[in-house]
Amino acid sequence: MNEEIHKKLAKTLSSKRLKHSDGVSATAVRLAGLYGADLEKACLAGMVHDCAREMANNILLQTAEAFGILVTDVDKREPILLHAPVGAVVARRDYGVQDPDVLQAITWHTTGGPGMSLLDNVIFLADFIEPGRSYPGVERLRALADNNLRDALLAAYDQTLEHLMAKGSLIHPATVAGRNALLLKPE
Amino acid sequence: MNEEIHKKLAKTLSSKRLKHSDGVSATAVRLAGLYGADLEKACLAGMVHDCAREMANNILLQTAEAFGILVTDVDKREPILLHAPVGAVVARRDYGVQDPDVLQAITWHTTGGPGMSLLDNVIFLADFIEPGRSYPGVERLRALADNNLRDALLAAYDQTLEHLMAKGSLIHPATVAGRNALLLKPE
Repeated sequence: MNEEIHKKLAKTLSSKRLKHSDGVSATAVRLAGLYGADLEKACLAGMVHDCAREMANNILLQTAEAFGILVTDVDKREPILLHAPVGAVVARRDYGVQDPDVLQAITWHTTGGPGMSLLDNVIFLADFIEPGRSYPGVERLRALADNNLRDALLAAYDQTLEHLMAKGSLIHPATVAGRNALLLKPE
Repeated sequence: MNEEIHKKLAKTLSSKRLKHSDGVSATAVRLAGLYGADLEKACLAGMVHDCAREMANNILLQTAEAFGILVTDVDKREPILLHAPVGAVVARRDYGVQDPDVLQAITWHTTGGPGMSLLDNVIFLADFIEPGRSYPGVERLRALADNNLRDALLAAYDQTLEHLMAKGSLIHPATVAGRNALLLKPE
């Protein structure tokens, strides 16, 4: 089944995005192995996570509305954020993905959020550190990811906030809620 | 009336806190003059804003509960944040402050939040830049405050987030909501 999905993704996504997706999938499998998440789910979620990433803003907004996805003021200003929850819809509708764990990991992969499962966290983190990523601090994040999931997730959230502040961009409430939930969780 | 309030504050607060409050009051009056807020309200709100700042954590939590103040998970972990909304209760109960504009400015002075009035913003900002404050970046913030209220507020929010991230502390959702509201507001 994954092969068919990959073929379809290859027809839909740019080669750059496909390569990124392959990188997230491979990294997610590695992290899943390290921390005890389901390897097959990690492989699939990583592969499909960006299936809606190249949809136009108006299509993202329309699809979100059509499928009852909550669209916040932040999403209205930055519709690209919707590619994650809309991606879960597209993964089910167009790629036949039915596993709710995989769909949830796709939903939360960009903003993060409270109540993230281990698999959700693995996909969220893999998206930051897959081999194609290159930004100041990525090596530190990769090293953390190999050693301590919680510290790596916290650093990933902080990296997101720093990036958004440097751009003068909005911060999605789910990102801060996710970071807070991580800090509030007993270690 | 303000003289009586000041006398009572002088009996309750440490001399360091009283000096800080005087600094916020004077700075708030200056900013109010620059940006068109009510000078008397700014003077009073600045003077009283920290009236609950030296209450013990358990008293802050108890008072918040007794007066129906929403206590979030973040407040439970960092009860000191409650000195702002509890401060509004104490200002009314113990200092006879009745002006709802002044009480609202006290309520939001620490976290910030969406829906802040001009007076709320003036007190929030004055608390960052009063003459007794000394931290990396305070001079830049003072310069911004003299020239562009919106830019200064955004920098104050970012300063707060940076500070909390550096400490590995929770971020209050109201702080991010306040920053977002500022960015979403037409200039």
